[in-house]
Amino acid sequence: MNFSSKIIEQAVNEFARFPGIGKKTAMRLVFHLIKRPANELEGLEESIQRIREELVFCSTCGNVSDSETCAICADRSRNHKLICVVEDMRDVMAIENTSQYRGVYHILGGLISPIDGVGPEDLNIDKLEQRIKDQEVDEVIMALSATMEGDTTGFYLSRRLKALGTKVSTLSRGISIGGELEYADEITLGRSIAARVPFD
Amino acid sequence: MNFSSKIIEQAVNEFARFPGIGKKTAMRLVFHLIKRPANELEGLEESIQRIREELVFCSTCGNVSDSETCAICADRSRNHKLICVVEDMRDVMAIENTSQYRGVYHILGGLISPIDGVGPEDLNIDKLEQRIKDQEVDEVIMALSATMEGDTTGFYLSRRLKALGTKVSTLSRGISIGGELEYADEITLGRSIAARVPFD
Repeated sequence: MNFSSKIIEQAVNEFARFPGIGKKTAMRLVFHLIKRPANELEGLEESIQRIREELVFCSTCGNVSDSETCAICADRSRNHKLICVVEDMRDVMAIENTSQYRGVYHILGGLISPIDGVGPEDLNIDKLEQRIKDQEVDEVIMALSATMEGDTTGFYLSRRLKALGTKVSTLSRGISIGGELEYADEITLGRSIAARVPFD
Repeated sequence: MNFSSKIIEQAVNEFARFPGIGKKTAMRLVFHLIKRPANELEGLEESIQRIREELVFCSTCGNVSDSETCAICADRSRNHKLICVVEDMRDVMAIENTSQYRGVYHILGGLISPIDGVGPEDLNIDKLEQRIKDQEVDEVIMALSATMEGDTTGFYLSRRLKALGTKVSTLSRGISIGGELEYADEITLGRSIAARVPFD
């Protein structure tokens, strides 16, 4: 592209670094910024600066946090004997949005994936073991994606945690609520028949 | 959405102000930022700050520019007697990318649109008349969108400019190059028959 302004060219290149945002979309975003009042741009700058300078990782669960201990780990009304293991902070948000869970979390920061060169030593596992050793834990729930990487990580982790004498469970898998049977994929359908539960 | 961090919540809200970017996409962008090194975030902040503080409008053509006079208006090798009237800077970029035009531009900053409450007085028209009065201009080319608003603006503007004795032309309209006839819409096809040109 042929930019008449170096400032715009620089901004477009910066925005085009985002995943899923190409030069055309970046141009559209920058063009929007040009037309906005200065205080709106300042707000955007400030929020990026705060991510850079103020955001830390919770020393307990590893979630991104505004302070040394995140709001969830600091909440004494939650059940700290129940730990839900997730891949990243987006999963925490997804589970929190269900309003069904009142335990705490542990963020792995990824999943075991030999293809991407991610091994157990790259994940936040040692701290999870330390948590289980340091305090009483009734149950650890594996809330990992139902993918090859999620299953591998869950299998590896459950063996390590069971060795510590911890009860380990995983999310139930089957037909989605509201999902029509004829559109379910064969693997999910097959597994949900094998893993059928008593009708109550 | 249920954010565990105020910093992230603020950033998501800022990014969700962009057109076409909802909360989910904003979350994805912010999540990307969290994982990037500090210098990449600084680069993004700096580029937004430069848009806010350094970007100006060219005093001649009205295009966004790094300096008082934009690179195109400052280029003495271009034909300053040929002015191409466009809606905004994206149109300048589109025309520059064709490498077919060596004249200069005039940016209106919008199109006449009674529905949106945009009248001729909201557009950068007075300065265009002044340019034509101040210097010798051979021709003004209307390069406006082939929409109701573009046609209205072109019609209005050409009457005003012709009153000054200026030659006014408009982009040719018809079947797109590479476009198959059977897929052309009826209006374009009908107009291109009426506006047929000698075969050369």
